[in-house]
Amino acid sequence: MNRNARALSPVALDVESSLDLTARYERVRGLTERLAAPLSPEDQTSQSMPDASPTKWHRAHVTWFFETFVLERYEEGFVPFDASFRMLFNSYYEAVGPKFPRPQRGLVTRPGVADIADYRADVDRRMTSTIAREGNALDDLVTLGLHHEQQHQELLLMDIKHLLSLHPGGEAYRAQATPDSSPATPAQWLECTGGLVEIGHDGAGFAFDNEAPRHRHFLEPFAIAERLVTVSEWRSFITDGGYRRPDLWLSDGWNTVQSLHWERPIYWLDDHATAHTLGGVRRLHDAEPVSHVSLYEADAFARWSEARLPTEFEWEQAVAEHAGDLLDSTSLDLDRLEPWPANITADETGRLRQAFGHCWQWTSSAYSAYPGFVAPDGAIGEYNAKFMSGQMVLRGSSSLTPPGHARATYRNFFPPSARWPMTGLRLARGLAS
Amino acid sequence: MNRNARALSPVALDVESSLDLTARYERVRGLTERLAAPLSPEDQTSQSMPDASPTKWHRAHVTWFFETFVLERYEEGFVPFDASFRMLFNSYYEAVGPKFPRPQRGLVTRPGVADIADYRADVDRRMTSTIAREGNALDDLVTLGLHHEQQHQELLLMDIKHLLSLHPGGEAYRAQATPDSSPATPAQWLECTGGLVEIGHDGAGFAFDNEAPRHRHFLEPFAIAERLVTVSEWRSFITDGGYRRPDLWLSDGWNTVQSLHWERPIYWLDDHATAHTLGGVRRLHDAEPVSHVSLYEADAFARWSEARLPTEFEWEQAVAEHAGDLLDSTSLDLDRLEPWPANITADETGRLRQAFGHCWQWTSSAYSAYPGFVAPDGAIGEYNAKFMSGQMVLRGSSSLTPPGHARATYRNFFPPSARWPMTGLRLARGLAS
Amino acid sequence: MNRNARALSPVALDVESSLDLTARYERVRGLTERLAAPLSPEDQTSQSMPDASPTKWHRAHVTWFFETFVLERYEEGFVPFDASFRMLFNSYYEAVGPKFPRPQRGLVTRPGVADIADYRADVDRRMTSTIAREGNALDDLVTLGLHHEQQHQELLLMDIKHLLSLHPGGEAYRAQATPDSSPATPAQWLECTGGLVEIGHDGAGFAFDNEAPRHRHFLEPFAIAERLVTVSEWRSFITDGGYRRPDLWLSDGWNTVQSLHWERPIYWLDDHATAHTLGGVRRLHDAEPVSHVSLYEADAFARWSEARLPTEFEWEQAVAEHAGDLLDSTSLDLDRLEPWPANITADETGRLRQAFGHCWQWTSSAYSAYPGFVAPDGAIGEYNAKFMSGQMVLRGSSSLTPPGHARATYRNFFPPSARWPMTGLRLARGLAS
Amino acid sequence: MNRNARALSPVALDVESSLDLTARYERVRGLTERLAAPLSPEDQTSQSMPDASPTKWHRAHVTWFFETFVLERYEEGFVPFDASFRMLFNSYYEAVGPKFPRPQRGLVTRPGVADIADYRADVDRRMTSTIAREGNALDDLVTLGLHHEQQHQELLLMDIKHLLSLHPGGEAYRAQATPDSSPATPAQWLECTGGLVEIGHDGAGFAFDNEAPRHRHFLEPFAIAERLVTVSEWRSFITDGGYRRPDLWLSDGWNTVQSLHWERPIYWLDDHATAHTLGGVRRLHDAEPVSHVSLYEADAFARWSEARLPTEFEWEQAVAEHAGDLLDSTSLDLDRLEPWPANITADETGRLRQAFGHCWQWTSSAYSAYPGFVAPDGAIGEYNAKFMSGQMVLRGSSSLTPPGHARATYRNFFPPSARWPMTGLRLARGLAS
Repeated sequence: MNRNARALSPVALDVESSLDLTARYERVRGLTERLAAPLSPEDQTSQSMPDASPTKWHRAHVTWFFETFVLERYEEGFVPFDASFRMLFNSYYEAVGPKFPRPQRGLVTRPGVADIADYRADVDRRMTSTIAREGNALDDLVTLGLHHEQQHQELLLMDIKHLLSLHPGGEAYRAQATPDSSPATPAQWLECTGGLVEIGHDGAGFAFDNEAPRHRHFLEPFAIAERLVTVSEWRSFITDGGYRRPDLWLSDGWNTVQSLHWERPIYWLDDHATAHTLGGVRRLHDAEPVSHVSLYEADAFARWSEARLPTEFEWEQAVAEHAGDLLDSTSLDLDRLEPWPANITADETGRLRQAFGHCWQWTSSAYSAYPGFVAPDGAIGEYNAKFMSGQMVLRGSSSLTPPGHARATYRNFFPPSARWPMTGLRLARGLAS
Repeated sequence: MNRNARALSPVALDVESSLDLTARYERVRGLTERLAAPLSPEDQTSQSMPDASPTKWHRAHVTWFFETFVLERYEEGFVPFDASFRMLFNSYYEAVGPKFPRPQRGLVTRPGVADIADYRADVDRRMTSTIAREGNALDDLVTLGLHHEQQHQELLLMDIKHLLSLHPGGEAYRAQATPDSSPATPAQWLECTGGLVEIGHDGAGFAFDNEAPRHRHFLEPFAIAERLVTVSEWRSFITDGGYRRPDLWLSDGWNTVQSLHWERPIYWLDDHATAHTLGGVRRLHDAEPVSHVSLYEADAFARWSEARLPTEFEWEQAVAEHAGDLLDSTSLDLDRLEPWPANITADETGRLRQAFGHCWQWTSSAYSAYPGFVAPDGAIGEYNAKFMSGQMVLRGSSSLTPPGHARATYRNFFPPSARWPMTGLRLARGLAS
Repeated sequence: MNRNARALSPVALDVESSLDLTARYERVRGLTERLAAPLSPEDQTSQSMPDASPTKWHRAHVTWFFETFVLERYEEGFVPFDASFRMLFNSYYEAVGPKFPRPQRGLVTRPGVADIADYRADVDRRMTSTIAREGNALDDLVTLGLHHEQQHQELLLMDIKHLLSLHPGGEAYRAQATPDSSPATPAQWLECTGGLVEIGHDGAGFAFDNEAPRHRHFLEPFAIAERLVTVSEWRSFITDGGYRRPDLWLSDGWNTVQSLHWERPIYWLDDHATAHTLGGVRRLHDAEPVSHVSLYEADAFARWSEARLPTEFEWEQAVAEHAGDLLDSTSLDLDRLEPWPANITADETGRLRQAFGHCWQWTSSAYSAYPGFVAPDGAIGEYNAKFMSGQMVLRGSSSLTPPGHARATYRNFFPPSARWPMTGLRLARGLAS
Repeated sequence: MNRNARALSPVALDVESSLDLTARYERVRGLTERLAAPLSPEDQTSQSMPDASPTKWHRAHVTWFFETFVLERYEEGFVPFDASFRMLFNSYYEAVGPKFPRPQRGLVTRPGVADIADYRADVDRRMTSTIAREGNALDDLVTLGLHHEQQHQELLLMDIKHLLSLHPGGEAYRAQATPDSSPATPAQWLECTGGLVEIGHDGAGFAFDNEAPRHRHFLEPFAIAERLVTVSEWRSFITDGGYRRPDLWLSDGWNTVQSLHWERPIYWLDDHATAHTLGGVRRLHDAEPVSHVSLYEADAFARWSEARLPTEFEWEQAVAEHAGDLLDSTSLDLDRLEPWPANITADETGRLRQAFGHCWQWTSSAYSAYPGFVAPDGAIGEYNAKFMSGQMVLRGSSSLTPPGHARATYRNFFPPSARWPMTGLRLARGLAS
């Protein structure tokens, strides 16, 4: 079976979301524990950089979210599991009160991993009974908490990958399957006519606040690449002096390349043939999507290719026009936590491929509010709105994204220098109108 | 005469641009020298921060632009005035070759001010004869050079203002007229219906590459404030704890406020009644536009006001709909280098005021390429395109902007933390469609 | 029994050192494990600052020392336990080869705590048999390794104290006994006549290379305080504005006070009545020695007291003249890991007290080579010599110093800003000659 | 005439110091102006790094010293020349009040160079009449002020050399004579028997507080090099990998070499044959003393040479025993501001050469108080005492030291990483006693 090209019927997703809330809660919560399971207490404690967090912090913080935003409001006779956790596991919610400094999360050795398991079990027990009592009234808030936990599941994997990469030699999170070694084929261009299109989530099913409101946007005609940029293409960019030619780079990008001495994607070894992965160091395959590149690198590559990155609106419209019901695998697979080469079969020709399940795809759009966007009141309003500055939108999903978490309207965002997320790119170019 | 509300007929602008190239060259070049005239060699040498440049560097760099991009190509038997200047006065053009490190511009004490006057005179003489020989063929390139020099005229004033502000007590650049002390009146809202509008420069007359191509953009209906936010309103924001309430701020903004200990606009003294200006320390007037605030502060103020900043498209459309032929003074006036209170007269009701000639106005739009934008080849292509990352668009013009330099389609840009440009804000809000 | 004033007969120390090498090896190695025992794998993994190291790193590094400097040379058929450890657990020995960057020791989550226990057991087994085979030939090198391990025992306690202090609220390493609360009595001055004295180790028993050669040094007459400066005295210094008066401070010290916002000893809480200790937060007692102050603070306090710090030569001579056979407790006691108030009994009058077993005592001597000092060849020569720059000598020993490790000629050293070692001070002043 | 070996009779120095106070005042003040004369207002304004100061700041600060410490106390009806100067030109005297931040001295463009000339003239006029009125009562204070100004004369030259070196190509302060190109001869060792010697100033004539009190110090026998280390010897050190061998370096030194990428003395060009000097770039001569090396480099060189640096006590004793009445030129010569090759003539054999007038000579002694040293009260007490931390003593004088300023007991000091002073080294080694 070709793992890269299976059709997910929309029904399957409906089934998923039709699970009752308790079942969905248990499913998501259980996955977090499965993701942490291969990691020792030592692995779960360290923080590799200010942007990353320890595994045990992720496990506690997502639990804190339920305790603070659900139990504190809805549980009868609420008593916190540990009063010190309110500050300790607050990430960035100013409205909740003080928070422990982010760069020092790796210094909080207590509570330990076993204590956090107790914390999770206690909150799960209380959540289950609160959900049972309150019923549908909690659906929106708990669903938000579950999507929040899914985001942290991906962060947990990104962060542990980064930590293990700093170990001399590179340590593995877990053994990984080997991708096929088929050669890369030239990317085909898919054309989109543009015009006045609708962008954003239509309100059916869960979406984050930043995906709304759905609104009109005018697009000039454009073409978009059928597949992601590959390792093989990236090697050509390097060989052609891509990291040494200032004319290819944004000014901020060139400053970054020079000050951080970038010469290749973050996890590539200097042979350009092997890379650090969650499965340890392995061979790179020509046809696999290049991953762990920054917006600066993606933008320079696009310029070198005489193309450009799509806007987030173009990306969303291209999926609407060209992806049809053919989606790549969107199920997070612990045996296959890396992007997979795109092996195109006959029936897929002319369709947008690798939209989901491989790499988040940088767009040229700065992250900002949609027209008419209003942030929710209170702490929940801090979820997305306050980050609408200095970040770029990524679309799609990655091989680290949990099942049921991807959407065509999903707006992920990172600073343009970020390389530790599972990021890649897809090219676009204008068409004469 | 009310200086704030004189109608500039389009004819006047036509006359200006109908001057022949030599006359325009002399006029712009002459203004640079007039701006530098009040400054001693010592004043012209220092650099107050990496973002700012010494006056004598500005004088040399704009001259270098003509020598490098015009004379080197078009002068017969071209010999550089001084071969070392090619590197010394290159600002950021990678295609031209190495450049002297920006943060060290204040260390280049040689050539001195008199040497730079000689350099300017020599290049002016050669430019004049080259223009005479080549005629219209040079029009585009020389015109670009003149607009480039006008940008540096404003930078020169911004930079010297910053330098003199660091002197204990604050030093004056030149005595300034006193603004009227009329009270501020509440801002009126002007409504715009939106729809599919046209944005960008139409090609008539000079424009920078980043203003093109003119293209369609869909706008929801919105309202925009008739005038800029005033000092009086900013004091209310401060009094209400504006700089101490994280809920009002973008995340990056809040980090900046805390790490840099911002408590007021950069040049305000701690009495909130007086400020450093190019005329030295003077009283602030209630009705004058607040100036020298960052995007972060402008955005927080707008949120506090239960409004928002306009997008750059809304701003341009509002000018098209509401400014009519009534423009504020756009002539740089050495006696009046600060924004001026808005004294509204009866005939101006319902019109967009202070669009030009007071403060550049922050928008919520990140600086990026218009659809179909293609950067020119070579060094000139570096002029704008490579800065399309990490910066926000400002519209309008300021009291430091030279005459003939402002346009409704002009896209100025600075990082969101910048406070040393002459920046203010105008509020906007959505309307039910 | 008064724990602060028991006479240790020199015989006792002789007995200790008369143990055979294997017994001494086992005793020292065993203490390291006992010190680590109260700490979870999480506690043993984190690194609180670049100057500090994780517990598990200390456990591995001291083992690496034996493997690299003893087994690699003397074991037949030597095979490293794990080849990657050679680099991973090298601290600073350039002659051994590359070393893992010190500030990243907290990122090395693998090997884990259990792996390091295995490493220790394996090396212990091989060391035991190598010692048995080689006999006395290894005495010097193994003894050096044991003293090296003892230094790391103290570092381990200093480092874990610092780490736990960063936890909100402050975490305890292990419950501690409560010191007596007797009031502080005024310090008596002991006079020393000076003259041409002998300084340095005489070669009997173990000493580090930096304690030799014994040499002559001329001293003017001086007086030295009988006991250490107390908490009560330090509070008076603070109350008198000690941390706010630049006239009291060295220039580097004043810069440090201002840039790091020092207002009290590092572990004091802002009530000045309680402090973080290895037993958690506890009350400070008036008569206990102040601890965890930097050289800068000690020097400012001495100036405020109209006294000065002793030179390291004065300190050593004062011990020779005045400590006699009366020594404070020098046995590291896991129940009492803090300095103890000095309760003076009649028979101790006129004797130098608290020389050992409470706080390391800052001297005014920069750490440098004794006349005639020659660093050993090779990696062992890096042990002390290359640090003879930028550091100040401390004399005595602390409540964290392992048994058998203190000597009157011992030269500890830290940078003048260091506050995380167990440091205090003893005053001195000149006498008319 | 051989400029390197003229005997200065002590009489000559007596004559100098027998000048009356007014004549000495005028002579020293006049030299400052002569040193500034070749520099434009632009040159005099810039600050190349936080450690260095602008020429015009030096000119003003030394004047401030007289105004603040003499006129303010002794002039009748004292009115400050400009009240703002009290803060603006305070260097580091906390007791005088606030001071302008040192790293921003280059931003104070006003007062300008002409204003400072006026300030100097005004203070000179008032000083002359105050000296005339007060007579001998002012001798000590004015003499201190003159020696203070001499120190700044040397700093002025060091600082302008550094500033001009940063100009692309390197700019000259003033044309310089060419040193002889004689080959270097091997250094001879001079033996000193040591014993209990006397160190420090005996009170006859001016000395800084830190040179007193004269006191006894015990020295082991040692040998010291007759001359300074040469350029030729330094090239051998480089060729032998001196900058790449960690075993040669102090730990702090090795960290500095790596982080700052040191590969040669600061002003050497990468051909190792030419160097930036106050006369512009010129050829290095084999036999000239190496200059502008840090203590770290000097220490590494000494280790590479299987020697060591002398202590400051050894240096002083060697001069007492071996320099006799033969001194090198100590007159600052504007035509010859660089060290000069040592051409040894027959009558000089066996004498210590180049003690003065070439390079300050690093010693292995950390800068600290002599036994019995007491800092003067008040602001004058800050002159030297508060810097007794983190600095190393240099002895001798340099080619930039003004006439009459050098002494055998003079203790100069700089941080061990400093390279912009005119620093060199002389080797020493122990002798069997």
